[in-house]
Amino acid sequence: MFKSAELGHRIEDAAYDKKELALRADLLDAQYDLFAKKSFAAIILINGVDGAGKGETVNLLNEWMDTRHIANQAFGDPSEEERDRPYMWRFWRVLPPRGKIGVLFGNWYTYPIIRRVNGDTSSAELDADVQRIVRFERMLCDEGVLLLKFWFHLSKKAQKKRLTSLEKDPRTRWRVTKQDWRGFERYGKFRKVSERVLRQTSTGDAPWVVVEGLDANYRNLTVGTVILESLRRRLDDKKAAPTAAHVPPLTPAIDNLRLLRTLNLRQTVSKERYKKELESRQRDLSRLCRDSKFKKRSVVAVFEGSDAAGKGGAIRRITPALDARQYQVIQIAAPTEEERVQPYLWRFWRHLPRLGRVTIFDRSWYGRVLVERVEGFAQPDAWMRAYGEINDFEEQLAEHGIIIVKFWLTISKAEQLRRFKEREQTRFKRFKITEEDWRNRKKWDAYELAATDMIDRTSTDLAPWTLVEANDKRFARLKVLDTLVRRIEKAL
Amino acid sequence: MFKSAELGHRIEDAAYDKKELALRADLLDAQYDLFAKKSFAAIILINGVDGAGKGETVNLLNEWMDTRHIANQAFGDPSEEERDRPYMWRFWRVLPPRGKIGVLFGNWYTYPIIRRVNGDTSSAELDADVQRIVRFERMLCDEGVLLLKFWFHLSKKAQKKRLTSLEKDPRTRWRVTKQDWRGFERYGKFRKVSERVLRQTSTGDAPWVVVEGLDANYRNLTVGTVILESLRRRLDDKKAAPTAAHVPPLTPAIDNLRLLRTLNLRQTVSKERYKKELESRQRDLSRLCRDSKFKKRSVVAVFEGSDAAGKGGAIRRITPALDARQYQVIQIAAPTEEERVQPYLWRFWRHLPRLGRVTIFDRSWYGRVLVERVEGFAQPDAWMRAYGEINDFEEQLAEHGIIIVKFWLTISKAEQLRRFKEREQTRFKRFKITEEDWRNRKKWDAYELAATDMIDRTSTDLAPWTLVEANDKRFARLKVLDTLVRRIEKAL
Repeated sequence: MFKSAELGHRIEDAAYDKKELALRADLLDAQYDLFAKKSFAAIILINGVDGAGKGETVNLLNEWMDTRHIANQAFGDPSEEERDRPYMWRFWRVLPPRGKIGVLFGNWYTYPIIRRVNGDTSSAELDADVQRIVRFERMLCDEGVLLLKFWFHLSKKAQKKRLTSLEKDPRTRWRVTKQDWRGFERYGKFRKVSERVLRQTSTGDAPWVVVEGLDANYRNLTVGTVILESLRRRLDDKKAAPTAAHVPPLTPAIDNLRLLRTLNLRQTVSKERYKKELESRQRDLSRLCRDSKFKKRSVVAVFEGSDAAGKGGAIRRITPALDARQYQVIQIAAPTEEERVQPYLWRFWRHLPRLGRVTIFDRSWYGRVLVERVEGFAQPDAWMRAYGEINDFEEQLAEHGIIIVKFWLTISKAEQLRRFKEREQTRFKRFKITEEDWRNRKKWDAYELAATDMIDRTSTDLAPWTLVEANDKRFARLKVLDTLVRRIEKAL
Repeated sequence: MFKSAELGHRIEDAAYDKKELALRADLLDAQYDLFAKKSFAAIILINGVDGAGKGETVNLLNEWMDTRHIANQAFGDPSEEERDRPYMWRFWRVLPPRGKIGVLFGNWYTYPIIRRVNGDTSSAELDADVQRIVRFERMLCDEGVLLLKFWFHLSKKAQKKRLTSLEKDPRTRWRVTKQDWRGFERYGKFRKVSERVLRQTSTGDAPWVVVEGLDANYRNLTVGTVILESLRRRLDDKKAAPTAAHVPPLTPAIDNLRLLRTLNLRQTVSKERYKKELESRQRDLSRLCRDSKFKKRSVVAVFEGSDAAGKGGAIRRITPALDARQYQVIQIAAPTEEERVQPYLWRFWRHLPRLGRVTIFDRSWYGRVLVERVEGFAQPDAWMRAYGEINDFEEQLAEHGIIIVKFWLTISKAEQLRRFKEREQTRFKRFKITEEDWRNRKKWDAYELAATDMIDRTSTDLAPWTLVEANDKRFARLKVLDTLVRRIEKAL
């Protein structure tokens, strides 16, 4: 992996100067094309051995290109708000939007490698970290991101020489820290772990480019050229994104027996029992969320269901039991401009709760495999891969200690009609019923099929769906509260 | 202030039920109008005595209105990222955009009052806190925000009664905490401090509404009615925003003697001296930013100046001296959709650095009094008040320990022409010169006047402007670095 980056590559100043000017101008052209077309985002990862010139190359890229359309991000120790969320949150926070280039100096590779080098994780744990990265990068590439991964390499001898010479020069002495020398002592281990990680993460979509860090001219020209060629190739590619033709269709059960149709929607709860049990469940919920153990957990509750199924009403039976400082209800509607130029899940990552908090999503990331699928807002390849992306996303939440509770509220077609009509006749419910609701109703079967597929494919042990029979509102609300209480209880 | 909220207001259930339905429907109508017009944002502050039903009213508002267009925010202890920034950052973070309603349960009033009640601040410090709030709210109102401030009041006797009865009922016992009783013991002091704060912050734009909290029916109808009437009045107001006609014009110095023309642009630095001093200054800067004392400070550096004055070049001489994890360069261009529906300064607040960091703004909040003034993008009343708003903003940064360094880079009109032409002829500098630059150049005098006014009005002891003679790039870059080093040195 590193052999050819230990050959002592060099480029003479004269040759460098000649090439630099053209490279620089071409890079700017490419950058402007990218910004004008806004067809994809580019992410440049900068990793490697200390002293191999990573920082200098980053500075140079900023000198060469128009810094208005480049965002540099470097990561130190995570902040409290970052530690309170899954590991990847800090990276999602700063992903570049389409049309821009993000240079990530230190990134999702940093901690998995360091932790393994320090012996804080086992080899199996490293592999798990790596697999998560592979899936994440796969998602980025599927979303159209151009991902360029540079590894700056130095042999052990070269690293020692470099650190020593930086230290000798009074102008650069400050750049060498104790940490750099400690890193040097672990060179062998670092190299071994890095090689393993690079091997496992060099995918067809996003291979590593290993750059010998010894000679600045060589380093800069290599990085600049790779960036230029990659941008250019993508910008000049006239083909559209991967076409839907390659996606095999989902096959609905041939006997047309659907999960949702097996529910018994006739279950009801009397007014008296409802009142009593509602209070008791709210009390339980309140107690659990004030438990000292809850400070290390959080809850993400997802509400999906057909129109008029009673999502809002169910949510309003939960919130009075919670401290207002503790919860957020997020209504998912059309994405904003800043959201539209990011990978699909970005808009949900930004709302993830800190530890000790509850976030309730009224509609959610499942929109992609429901409304976007049925209405054709998402291409088949996009919603097909969404099942896997969503499972990945929820796995990361679950591993961080977030309790994920997902509700699908089901009503019958007849009950929906009754509620629509009631809404049209009640003044303060009028706003709840629009032309769109009537249009959606006509696609009842398509929505039912989409929901069935969704439940099949995303009900996991970590984040199971709870199907709620919602023809009777009281029954539905109690079932929701009851499930929530049981899930939190079990988790604590 | 509180007298009429201790009369024992009550509304019977029958009367309440009758009014509630209409109120609810009217509120929804108003909310939909607001969302459709997107002409302003509404902020509802909920403050007052514990046990006076604040939380219940917030829940009720969410039941009455369409939660898709309401955002509830409740504030507990600030997080590390919040503590790392000025006090108001956490509120700027969650301001509702135009067209929406934000309910702020616990807000900028909470800590100033609590700290004074606990004796952590003096009476003079409280007054300073209050004055800052007054200016902040004034800015919100000038930005078109509808600000509604509710104070939920209970007499001491009523508070005791309320806490006791909540505690007796097993269904609500959990709502009463030790903190509530501790608050009760300080009732007298709390009341005194609150009354002072309410008196000083009841302005014409945003008066307090004191609501007796004893009777839920009365409380809910009062709050609902005030919100409805305020929304309605504003929505139905056909008049536009305050017209520019009322704004007195700025008078330029009648002798036409302008600050910027007094600069000696002939100062130069030789190549040798430049090289030597650049290295030495970068070393100083690097040392200072790695000083342990710097962990409790941060730097906000602002670069403004005419086109082609060399802002980018100066910035690129700063960043190599910094740890990449430590700095951010923020290029200010046209605002995004999410930024356009917020008060003007929102887009800058979102980029404020944490402690121990450096943020460099390439163009900044001064755009409002420069390009927006000259090009007419902002109305005169908006850019006129911006001077005060900016000074306020910078005062808050300075009080938080942020070192603010502002550079105005000046070149002569002839030098600008020379650079424009050079840019057109150098391929990799081509992107730096556009039609717009040539258009702006025709307005040289107007820009010069705007810059002079800006420097006059916003050069403060806390955040002075440094005028940089930039005809000689080397001289300019050294002056910038030198100033930065001296300012940080002095601050540490």
